Amino acid sequence: MRVPQTLLALLLTLCQLAASATSLNKPAAPISRIDPTFWWVGMKNPKLQLLVHGPGLATSRVTMAAYPGVTLEGFQRLESPNYLLVNLTINSTAQPGKLQLTFNGKQKTTYAYELRARTTPGDKSKVQGISSADFIYLLMPDRFANGDPTNDVVKGNRPPGLARDSMYARHGGDLKGIEQHFDYLKELGVTAIWPTPVVDNNMPKAGYHGYALTDYYAVDPHYGTNEDYVRFVQHAHEQGLKVIHDVVLNHIGSFNYLWLDQPAKDWFHQWPSFTRGNYRNGTVNDPHVAALDRKLFSNTWFDTTMPDPAQENPLVETYLIQNFLWWVEYTGVDGYRVDTYTYSDPTFLMHWGQAILDEYPQLGMFGETWMQEAEGVAQQAFWTRNVFPPVNGFKSNLPGAIDFILRQALLESLTKPAGFAEGVSKLYYAVQGDWMYEDASRNVIFLDNHDVDRVFSVLGEDVNKQKMALAWLLTERGIPQIYYGTEVLMKNFSRPDGLLREDFPGGWPGDRQNAFTAAGRTPAQQDVHEYVRRLANYRKTHPVLQTGQLTHFVPENGVYTYFRHNAQGQSVMIMLNTNAAAKQVALSRFEERLKGFKSAQDVLSGAPVPNLQTANIPAHTALVWELR
Amino acid sequence: MRVPQTLLALLLTLCQLAASATSLNKPAAPISRIDPTFWWVGMKNPKLQLLVHGPGLATSRVTMAAYPGVTLEGFQRLESPNYLLVNLTINSTAQPGKLQLTFNGKQKTTYAYELRARTTPGDKSKVQGISSADFIYLLMPDRFANGDPTNDVVKGNRPPGLARDSMYARHGGDLKGIEQHFDYLKELGVTAIWPTPVVDNNMPKAGYHGYALTDYYAVDPHYGTNEDYVRFVQHAHEQGLKVIHDVVLNHIGSFNYLWLDQPAKDWFHQWPSFTRGNYRNGTVNDPHVAALDRKLFSNTWFDTTMPDPAQENPLVETYLIQNFLWWVEYTGVDGYRVDTYTYSDPTFLMHWGQAILDEYPQLGMFGETWMQEAEGVAQQAFWTRNVFPPVNGFKSNLPGAIDFILRQALLESLTKPAGFAEGVSKLYYAVQGDWMYEDASRNVIFLDNHDVDRVFSVLGEDVNKQKMALAWLLTERGIPQIYYGTEVLMKNFSRPDGLLREDFPGGWPGDRQNAFTAAGRTPAQQDVHEYVRRLANYRKTHPVLQTGQLTHFVPENGVYTYFRHNAQGQSVMIMLNTNAAAKQVALSRFEERLKGFKSAQDVLSGAPVPNLQTANIPAHTALVWELR
Repeated sequence: MRVPQTLLALLLTLCQLAASATSLNKPAAPISRIDPTFWWVGMKNPKLQLLVHGPGLATSRVTMAAYPGVTLEGFQRLESPNYLLVNLTINSTAQPGKLQLTFNGKQKTTYAYELRARTTPGDKSKVQGISSADFIYLLMPDRFANGDPTNDVVKGNRPPGLARDSMYARHGGDLKGIEQHFDYLKELGVTAIWPTPVVDNNMPKAGYHGYALTDYYAVDPHYGTNEDYVRFVQHAHEQGLKVIHDVVLNHIGSFNYLWLDQPAKDWFHQWPSFTRGNYRNGTVNDPHVAALDRKLFSNTWFDTTMPDPAQENPLVETYLIQNFLWWVEYTGVDGYRVDTYTYSDPTFLMHWGQAILDEYPQLGMFGETWMQEAEGVAQQAFWTRNVFPPVNGFKSNLPGAIDFILRQALLESLTKPAGFAEGVSKLYYAVQGDWMYEDASRNVIFLDNHDVDRVFSVLGEDVNKQKMALAWLLTERGIPQIYYGTEVLMKNFSRPDGLLREDFPGGWPGDRQNAFTAAGRTPAQQDVHEYVRRLANYRKTHPVLQTGQLTHFVPENGVYTYFRHNAQGQSVMIMLNTNAAAKQVALSRFEERLKGFKSAQDVLSGAPVPNLQTANIPAHTALVWELR
Repeated sequence: MRVPQTLLALLLTLCQLAASATSLNKPAAPISRIDPTFWWVGMKNPKLQLLVHGPGLATSRVTMAAYPGVTLEGFQRLESPNYLLVNLTINSTAQPGKLQLTFNGKQKTTYAYELRARTTPGDKSKVQGISSADFIYLLMPDRFANGDPTNDVVKGNRPPGLARDSMYARHGGDLKGIEQHFDYLKELGVTAIWPTPVVDNNMPKAGYHGYALTDYYAVDPHYGTNEDYVRFVQHAHEQGLKVIHDVVLNHIGSFNYLWLDQPAKDWFHQWPSFTRGNYRNGTVNDPHVAALDRKLFSNTWFDTTMPDPAQENPLVETYLIQNFLWWVEYTGVDGYRVDTYTYSDPTFLMHWGQAILDEYPQLGMFGETWMQEAEGVAQQAFWTRNVFPPVNGFKSNLPGAIDFILRQALLESLTKPAGFAEGVSKLYYAVQGDWMYEDASRNVIFLDNHDVDRVFSVLGEDVNKQKMALAWLLTERGIPQIYYGTEVLMKNFSRPDGLLREDFPGGWPGDRQNAFTAAGRTPAQQDVHEYVRRLANYRKTHPVLQTGQLTHFVPENGVYTYFRHNAQGQSVMIMLNTNAAAKQVALSRFEERLKGFKSAQDVLSGAPVPNLQTANIPAHTALVWELR
C-alpha cells in the first residue's frame, strides 16, 4: 500500500510533537539543540551567547519572558537558515531557574533554558589545579579497561559496536573501567588521571581516539553519559585523584553537527579540496615566513576527516570559550590539556586562555607543543608563558608545555654515547633553556604518549634503561606524566600509531594476563612496576622532589648529576650513569650541594650510604640518594 | 775574567740611562712603559687612567706640570711595587701636546705623555663600519703571504724565526703580504679583510695564531710595526677595502708583561694549578647552574699558556676599554671581531661594548659565539642584541653573532638527507629563529674558519656542493665571510687545527703553485674561484642581496627556496637542491613572490629564463635567478 505524501508528512509531524512532549527540557520543534546546553548564574563574565539550531529557525523572532537579572540583548541570523544566535546578559543578581525563550517564526516554540547555581567557586574538591606535586597517568579510555559492557554497543552510532581485533575500532574501555582501577593508580603513586578526550566521537572510523569530536557538549556514549563523567570526576576527587580533561580546539570530526549543517561558511576554513597543513608552527613567529606557508599551517585541516574551525571568527571564538567554561563548571575537572595547541589561531588562543583562566585561575593547563629537536627550547617556550616580548602580536598565556624537547633530550641521553654536546649533554643543554620559560616547573614531562614510540621500544627493551628513564621522570623539574602501560613495559613503535594504543592487559574480562595485579605481572614487569611505585610514592611524600630547586652539574664521562633541594634542608641527589659500564664518581665536585650532609639513604633500595666520598653506579642506572 | 756583581750592576744602570737618553719619548728610568702609550684630546669620555710600570715605581709621588684643560686627579698604588695608576681628566678644551708627569720616588723621573689630535670623527675614510653590504675575507696573516722578508726573523723573540715545515711555527706571512694581494681580493668581490689578531704574540710556541697576546699595544713585529698597521688600514681604505681588527678580551699569552709582572693578584684569575674551563657558555644564563660550573666557565684559563684577566676588577675593565678605544682611534679600523666573546665576564662585556660603541657608534662589531647545535638559536641570540629581557643582569649589546648555528644547519643541509626536520629542514628552522635577534642581518655567516673543519672536506670534496654552499653564503641574510683558500678548495679536517691553517699557495716566493692567478689554479679551483667572483661581484652591485628582505618557503622534497627582495622591485630567487638527483619544481607555489615578474636571468650562467612556470635544477646545485 502506498501512503500519500501529505499523509506521511502529517504523521511525521504528529510523531515529532509527541516526542517533544515527552520531556519538559526537550525543545518543541523546530529547535533541535541549544549550545551551551545550560548555563549558570554568577559567572564572572555576564555575557552568554546561545547558538540555537532548528530547521528553518533563522526567520524566527526571539522574545524572553521577564526574568530578574537577565536581559535579552538581541538575536542574530547567520548564513544558514537553521541557526539563530541569542545574546543574553546575566547579572550577578540573577537566581537559578529557567528562562522562557520564545521563537516565533513559521512555528512558535518556547524553550525553557536552564540557569543553574554554580558549585565550583566554594567547593574546594573541584578544579583543584595541577602542579608539580602531581604525577599524571595518561590513558586512552577505549584501551584501558572495559568496566561497563552495557555501553559497548551504542545504537545508531557509526559504527555502533566494538572490534577488539582492529587497532582502528573501539575496544570497549570506558569511564567505569578507569574507575574500577582507581586503587591500582593510587597504589602506583598516581595523583592525576588524564584520559584522552572523552567527548563524543561518533565517526565512521577511529572514533576511539577521541580527537575528532562530533558533539562539543556530550560525553561519548561508549564511555558513559555526561552524568557518568560528572560522577567519575567526583569519585576521583573523593579518592584523592585529580582529572585532566583533554581539550581539542583546533579541529573537529567531520560528523560534527556544526560541520554537517554549518552556521555559516566562515565558521570553518574552506578549501576547494582537502589541503593538508604543513605542520610548521614556526610560521607563526618566523620573520621570513611566506604568506602561503603561514596559511597552510593555521588554516588547513589536520586530517581529511577533521574540519578546521575558523577561530578568528569572533562567533566561533565565543562558542569555543563558552564550551570550555561549561566543561569546567559542569564537571569540576582539575586541568585542561590542550591538544594541537600551536595549530589554533594565535589571537584566539590568547583570548581563549584568558577567558578560561579569568574564570578559573586555579585550573591546571598545559598544551601539546610538539617540537622538533631542531626547533629547540625557544620555540617550545614561545608557546607558553615566557620571557619573550609578543611576536606578531602573540604572547602565549598557556601555563605549561608538554615538554617534547626534554623528552627528546632524555632519549638521546639513553640511546647515544655521551660527548661534549651529544648524548646526555643534550639533556643538560635542554634543561639550561629553562631561562626562557616564566616557570618551567609547570611543564609536563614525559617519556611517551599515545602519539610517539613507546619508550621501552625506543630504549631497545632494556629494563635498566627503562628504570633510569623513569627515575629521571620522577626527579626532574616539572609535572611527570606516565603513559598507561609504561610501568609494565608495554612496547611498540608508532608504525602505525594504533600499536601504541594496545589494551592494558587485564582490562577486559577474560584477558589472558592481568597486569593490574602483582601476580599477573612477569618478573620484569613487576620489577619496573615496583620501581615506579616506590619512587612515585616517595615523590608524593617528599615535597623536595615536587617543588625543590633544581641544581645540575655539567655531565662528566657520561654521568649527569643533579640535586633537588629546598629551604627546609631537604636534598636529594640524582646521578644518571648513561654509560654501558659502571662508574665510580668522586663527589668532591658537588661540595656546594653536599655540605652539611654526612650520609644518605638510597631511595630505591633503602640501603644506607655511610659517607659522601664516592658513588659507585652500575651501568645504565640512576642513583637517587636522600641526603642526611 | 769574572766581573764583580756590583760593577756589573753599575754598568747595566749606565747602559739603561744611556738608552733612555736616546729618545725624548722614551721614559727615563725607572719607567718602563705607560699604557695607553699615548692618548687623544677630544674623546667623549674625559677620563683617562694610565698604568705606569717601572721597577720600584710604586712609592713615587706623581705631579703634573700645569696643562690647560687637563687635571691630575690622583694616583694609586697597586699590590706590586712596580706599578702606579695615574688618573687624569682631559676636558674638551684641552689641546694636543705633551703632559709633563713627574714621578718622585727613589729616583725622580719626568715623562712626556703625548696627547694627540683625533682624526676619526671628521674622517669618513676611517671606522666605516661593517654591514651586510660587505663580503669579509678571513685570513691568518702568518699563513697568507710573505710580503716582507725583513721581518721573518725578529731578534730576541721566542723564537725569533720561522719554520715553514711546522704547523705550529711561524711561516712568515705579514701585513705587506696581504697588501700585495689587495687586487686579488678586490677582484674576488671582497670588501673587508679580517686578519686573525695582528697584535704581538711573543710566545715560545704557536704565537703565529695571534690569540695569545703578549703586548696589548703593539703589532706583532713579524707582521710589521704599529705604523705599518696604520698604513695598512689606510691603504686598504684607499682601495675600497675595510679592515676588521680581531679583539681578544678573554685571555692573554703567558708572556704578556702584565702576567710576568702582575700589577696585583686580583688582575687575573688565579688557580692553584692549571684548571681548564668547561667551555659551557650556558652557565651564564642557566637557572639551575651550580656555582662551581659557573666559575669554571668564566674564570678559568682558556689554555695552559693563556692567563685569564679578572675583568670584574674595575681597573682591569678600564685597562681593556682604553686599549680598545686606542686601537680604533689609532688605526681607524672598521670593525671589531671579538674573540671568545662568551667567556668574558658578562658585566664587563656590557660595559666594554657600551664604552666602545659610545665612542664609535659606527664601528662594526660581531663576536665569536661558538654554539653547539643543541644550544640552538636562542643561546646564540642571548649573546647578541636580542628580544630577551636581561638574564642574571646580563643583556648583550653586541650587534652581531658569528653565526655558528646557521653554519651547522647549512652543513646538515648539504650532508644529510632531507626529512621533515632533518637535512635542509634544519636550515629552514635555524633561519626561523631570527625572531630572537634584534637584527639578524648583523650576524656574520660563514662556511668555515681557522677553528673548524674546512668546508670542502666537510662536503666530501664535492665541487658542486662547495658551489652550493658558496651560493648560500652570498645570498643568505647577514654578512658573508669566506675563509682564505675556500675559494680555491683548500681542505682538511681539524686534526689538529694547524691543518686548517696551511699557507695560501703562491703567498711565498718559490711556491710550487700560485693560486692567486688564474693560470696557477687547477680547473676545479678556477671553477670555484670564478663562481665566487661572479656571485660576490653581483652581490656587491645589487643591494637586494645585501639588504633585501628575506622570504623563505618550507622546503619540499629536499629543495629549499627563498627570495631576497626590496621595495625598489628588485627580487632574486634562490633555490637549493640538496638532493643527489635533479629536480623539476613547479613555481606556482611561490606566486606571492613571483607576481609582477615574467622572466628571469640566471645570475651565474647569465642565461635568460623565458618564463616562471618551472625550474629544472641539477643535483646538488643552487639556482640564483634575478627576476625581471
